Amino acid sequence: MRTSIATVCLSGGLVEKLHACAEAGFDGVEIMDADLVAAYESPEEIRALCARLGLTIELFQPFRDFEGVDADLLADNLRRAEAKFDVMERLGADQVLVCSNVATATIDDDAVMAEQLGALADLAAPRGIRIAYEALAWGRFVDDYRRAWRIVELADRPNLGVCLDSFHILSRGHDPAGIEAIHGEKVFFLQLADAPALSMDVLSWSRHHRLFPGEGAFDLTRFLAHVLRTGYRGPLSLEVFNDTFRQTDVKRTAAHARRSLTWLADRTAVENDWDTSRLSPAQDARGIDFVEIAGAELDDLDELLAQLGFAFRGRHRRKPVRLWTYGDARIVLNEQVRDEHPRLAAFGLTVDDAAGAAERARALGAPAVFRRTYSGEQELRAVSAPDGTEVFWNDRAAEGSWIPEFEGGVAEPPALDGEIDHINIGSRWQDFDEAILFAHSVLSLHAEQAAEVPGPLGLVRSQVMRTADGVVRLPVNLAPPTAPLPTRHIAVRCDDVFEVARRARERGMRFLPVPENYYDDLSARFRLDQDFLSRLRELDLFYDRDDSGEFIHFYTETVGTVFLEFLERRGAYDGYGAPNAPVRLAMQRARTR
Amino acid sequence: MRTSIATVCLSGGLVEKLHACAEAGFDGVEIMDADLVAAYESPEEIRALCARLGLTIELFQPFRDFEGVDADLLADNLRRAEAKFDVMERLGADQVLVCSNVATATIDDDAVMAEQLGALADLAAPRGIRIAYEALAWGRFVDDYRRAWRIVELADRPNLGVCLDSFHILSRGHDPAGIEAIHGEKVFFLQLADAPALSMDVLSWSRHHRLFPGEGAFDLTRFLAHVLRTGYRGPLSLEVFNDTFRQTDVKRTAAHARRSLTWLADRTAVENDWDTSRLSPAQDARGIDFVEIAGAELDDLDELLAQLGFAFRGRHRRKPVRLWTYGDARIVLNEQVRDEHPRLAAFGLTVDDAAGAAERARALGAPAVFRRTYSGEQELRAVSAPDGTEVFWNDRAAEGSWIPEFEGGVAEPPALDGEIDHINIGSRWQDFDEAILFAHSVLSLHAEQAAEVPGPLGLVRSQVMRTADGVVRLPVNLAPPTAPLPTRHIAVRCDDVFEVARRARERGMRFLPVPENYYDDLSARFRLDQDFLSRLRELDLFYDRDDSGEFIHFYTETVGTVFLEFLERRGAYDGYGAPNAPVRLAMQRARTR
Repeated sequence: MRTSIATVCLSGGLVEKLHACAEAGFDGVEIMDADLVAAYESPEEIRALCARLGLTIELFQPFRDFEGVDADLLADNLRRAEAKFDVMERLGADQVLVCSNVATATIDDDAVMAEQLGALADLAAPRGIRIAYEALAWGRFVDDYRRAWRIVELADRPNLGVCLDSFHILSRGHDPAGIEAIHGEKVFFLQLADAPALSMDVLSWSRHHRLFPGEGAFDLTRFLAHVLRTGYRGPLSLEVFNDTFRQTDVKRTAAHARRSLTWLADRTAVENDWDTSRLSPAQDARGIDFVEIAGAELDDLDELLAQLGFAFRGRHRRKPVRLWTYGDARIVLNEQVRDEHPRLAAFGLTVDDAAGAAERARALGAPAVFRRTYSGEQELRAVSAPDGTEVFWNDRAAEGSWIPEFEGGVAEPPALDGEIDHINIGSRWQDFDEAILFAHSVLSLHAEQAAEVPGPLGLVRSQVMRTADGVVRLPVNLAPPTAPLPTRHIAVRCDDVFEVARRARERGMRFLPVPENYYDDLSARFRLDQDFLSRLRELDLFYDRDDSGEFIHFYTETVGTVFLEFLERRGAYDGYGAPNAPVRLAMQRARTR
Repeated sequence: MRTSIATVCLSGGLVEKLHACAEAGFDGVEIMDADLVAAYESPEEIRALCARLGLTIELFQPFRDFEGVDADLLADNLRRAEAKFDVMERLGADQVLVCSNVATATIDDDAVMAEQLGALADLAAPRGIRIAYEALAWGRFVDDYRRAWRIVELADRPNLGVCLDSFHILSRGHDPAGIEAIHGEKVFFLQLADAPALSMDVLSWSRHHRLFPGEGAFDLTRFLAHVLRTGYRGPLSLEVFNDTFRQTDVKRTAAHARRSLTWLADRTAVENDWDTSRLSPAQDARGIDFVEIAGAELDDLDELLAQLGFAFRGRHRRKPVRLWTYGDARIVLNEQVRDEHPRLAAFGLTVDDAAGAAERARALGAPAVFRRTYSGEQELRAVSAPDGTEVFWNDRAAEGSWIPEFEGGVAEPPALDGEIDHINIGSRWQDFDEAILFAHSVLSLHAEQAAEVPGPLGLVRSQVMRTADGVVRLPVNLAPPTAPLPTRHIAVRCDDVFEVARRARERGMRFLPVPENYYDDLSARFRLDQDFLSRLRELDLFYDRDDSGEFIHFYTETVGTVFLEFLERRGAYDGYGAPNAPVRLAMQRARTR
C-alpha cells in the first residue's frame, strides 16, 4: 500500500517539506498549489527533486469553484484550469483535485455539473491528466460524496473520478458504507484525516483541528475498509490541517504522520482479518516492569524513596544504577547521565512477547535505544518515544527478572502491597499529539475521555492512555506553553495510604502541605465523618469520591522535574482525583515561588 | 459606577490576583470558590487582605446544581450551602452566585424550583446573605434569564434576586430588551464578557473564548444600557474565561481588564446621551502624522529610504533624530536608543484635539510617555501602548508642524503623491487581544473582519483596526508562538507604484525577489494582459484584484524587524493584498535561512 501526504500538513518551505516526506518514508506527495506558488523553485526543479528523493507526485491540489456556473464563468474556469494543467505538465503531475464549488456555483443541477466536469475532463484528457472530484463538507450544492459520485457517473469520462476524504464524509456523519457502491477504478484518490469530537462549524473544525489517524475520534479503520473493498489501489494520503503541526518541526511531524499511516493500514487489516498486516501483532501491556529516574545525582531520591518505605535492593553490578522496590513497584535510579536534573527518563512494560513488541515499535518508526549490556545480563529491548522517553519491554513471565543484577541491598524485602498505578507524562505542546499516537500505536493503549484542569499558569489538558483492564495507565498532560519544563510523576497504589503517610512522616519526609481551605471544601462537598476528615487533614491527604468508590492520595515534593504520588483506591473508583489537581498545581507553584 | 472582576479571569494564585486587581484600580472582586480552596490563606486572611487593598468582595461564586431536585438531594444541597455560607461569613462576603442546575435537576417545574430557591434564601437570610440566581446558557432546564426571573419572582424573597451575565444571554441570541422588565432592586449582580462570533457548542465557547468588553462581537453597550435602565446600581463585574488570559501576566491582564470596563461604561453613556460619561470624547483619527523607527544605528534605513525616493528633510536640532518624507508620508529615524535592532517604535496620529485624545488615553490607563522637549519645540503628547509602542497625538491643524525642528535637509521636497496607507503591527500572542482593545478604546479604531494567513511557521491571524474612512489603518498581526520577534512594516500609498519601483531599482535598491511561480499563478487566476504581467514580473511587484478595484505593491528587505511596502490602490480596492501574504512570508523566511 503506497503512502502519501499533502504538503500543507507540514511547516516550512516546499523543498524542506519534500525532504522531510522522503526521509519519513513516504512514497508520494500531494503538492499544494499555494506551496508551489510561494517557492522559488520552478515546477521542473520540484519535479526533478521529487524524482531524486523517490517521491511520486500523486496529486496537485486544489482546483476550486469550478462547476455549477454560468457559461461566462465556465469559460473563465476552463481557462484557469488550462493554466494549471500547464503547471502540472511541468511538474509531471497527472492528477488534480477538484473540490466541489463553495463560492460561485449558481446552478444546483447534477446534469449541468456533470456536463461542466465532463468538459474539464475532456480538456485534461489529451494531456493524460485525471480529475479527482471531491465533495467538500461545506460545498455550496455538493457536500455529500454520494452526490459527487452520481455526478461523476453521469459525466461518464474515463479520466474523471472521485476523491474521498475521511474528514468531509465523517464530519458530516455520512455513512461510509455507501462508498462500496462506487467502482474501485473510479475512486481516483483517498485522503485521510482524523479529528477530535468537537461541535463547531465544520469549516473551522476542518481547517484547524484535523489530526493524524489514531489521534482523534473517527472510526478510520472502518472507513478505510469500505474504500479498500471497492478495489481502490491508490495511495493512502494524509491531508491534515492543524494549527500545531503547521508550527512543529517539519521532519518530526513527517515521521509522526508516517507512523499514523503504518498504524492505520495495519489496524485495518487486523480488524478485517486481511493478510496484508505486516506488523508484529499489537500486544496489551500486562504490567509495569519498572520506572527509571535519571540524573547526575539522585541522593535526594534515595532519601525520599526510603522515607516512603521503599526497600533498597542494591546497586547494579556494573553501572551507577540503583534499585528500590515497594511491593511490585520498582524504581530504578540511573546516574549514568551528566549535568541533568532528575527526570523521569524511562519505563518498562511487560508483554506476552517482548521481542515482538520491540519489533512492532521499530516498524512503527520508533528508533531503537542502545544500552550497554554484559554477558549474563537481561537483554534490553527498547525504543525512544518521540519526546525522548525510553520504553523497554520485558516478557510477562520475566517481570523483574533483571533484579538479581542488583547487589548489596535488602535480599528479602517486606511483602508490601504496592504497584505502579500510573505514570504521569508531562508533555510540551509540540509533543502532545505525537505522544498520544505513540501510546496508541506503539504501546497499544487507548484514550479515556480527556479532562481540562485549571492551574495557576493556565489550563492543563490531560489525556489518559490506558489498557482496558487499567493495569497500565499513562496520563499525558499538556502543560501551558508558558509553564516551565513539564513535571512528571510516578503514582504508586497501596492498600493503606494512611499507614504509608504516617510512616513516611515518622521517617522525616516533608509533605507538600495541603491548604486548610481544601478540607473545608471537602467537608462541604462530601458528608464526611469528622474523624475521617481529621485524619486526612493531619496527614495532608487528598480525597475524592464518585458513585463507584473512593480515592485517597498524597504527593511528595518535586525533585528536579519528578515527584511521587501514593494512592489508595477503594471500591471500583477508576479515576485519578482530577478535582484535586488544581489544588496540587497551586501548591506546587506556591512552593517554587 | 463600581468595577469588579472575577478572580478566575486571571493567572496566578489568589493573593497575586487580588494585588493585581487592586493595582489595576478595581473596586471589588468576585472570589472564585476554587481559587480560595487552592490557597493557603484562610478566609479571614483573604478578607483582611481585601480590606487592606480596598477591594470589596462583591460575590462568592459559584454554587452549583442546587434547584429542581428531589427531597433527599435538596437536603444535601442545603447542607452543602450551609458549609459555604460558613466560608462566606469568614470571608465577609454577603452575596453568592447560584447557577442554574446543569447536572442533577430532575424536576422541570417553576414552582418547585422557586420553592427550593426560597428555602435556600431563608437559610441565608439570618446571616445577611443574598442569593443571585443565574441562568446558565447550558442549564438543564433553566437556560434563559427570563425564566430565572420568573422563578425569582415566584419565590418572592427579599434576599433572592437574579444575576445577569452578558455571555449567557447574548450567546443564546436572547433579546436583552426583556431585562428592562426586571425590577432594578432584583438585579443583584451583573457579569460582563464579550466574545468573538464563533459557531461552536456554547459551553466550549464560554469556557475558552470569552473576551473583555470591546474585543469581541457582542453589542455590550446596548446590553448594559438595558441593565442600567432597570435601576441596577451594583458593580459592573467581568467574568471572562479565556485560555490566553489564564496564561498572561496577572498585572498586565488586570490592567487590560480594567481598561475594558472604563471604555464600556463611557461608551454606553455616550451612546445613550447620559451625563455619566467621564472620559474626553473619543476622536476619529484624521491622519498619520509620522512613523518612527528607533535603533542604535539606522544608516541602512537612510539608504533604503533614499532609494525609495524619500526626501531627506534634515537632522533634529538637538537630538540624534532624522526625518525623511515622501509626500505626506513622514518617517522619523531615532538613534536615541542603544543596542537595539531597528524596530517600529512609535507613530503619531492627528486628531481634532490632541490634548483631549491624550487625556482620554491616560484615563483609559495608558501610561504617559516622557520625551525631552525644548523651548520652542512641539509639545509631545504621547502614551505607551501595551506592547511598548509609543503613540503621539498632534492637532489636525498642526499636522507636520514639528518639521521645522529638522535642519540641513531638502527645504523644498518634490511634490509627491504619497501617504502612509497602513502601519502593520506584528504582535506576540501575549499582546494580541490587549492590542485590539487599545486600538479600539484609546485610538477609536474599529475592527474589520479578521483573516488568517498561512505562513511557513504557522498561521498568522490578522486583525485590521481602522477608521471608517480608511485614513488610518492598523493591521495587527498575531504571529505563531514559534516565530521569532514579530516584524512590523510601514506601507506607503503612492499614485504610480511602477514608477517608484523602477526608480528604486535604478538607485540600487535590492528588491525582495518574487518567485516566478507566483506570476504563473497570477496569470491563471486573473486574465491579465501579458505586457502588464511582464511589467509586474520585471519589477517584482505583487498584484491583487477584487470586484471593486486593483492593488499593486512591493516589499523591501527587512532591516532589524522593520520593512517597508509601497502600494497603489486602483478603483475602490479596500483590502491589503491578503492573497499575496503567504508568498511574502515564504520569501522573507527563505531570505533569513
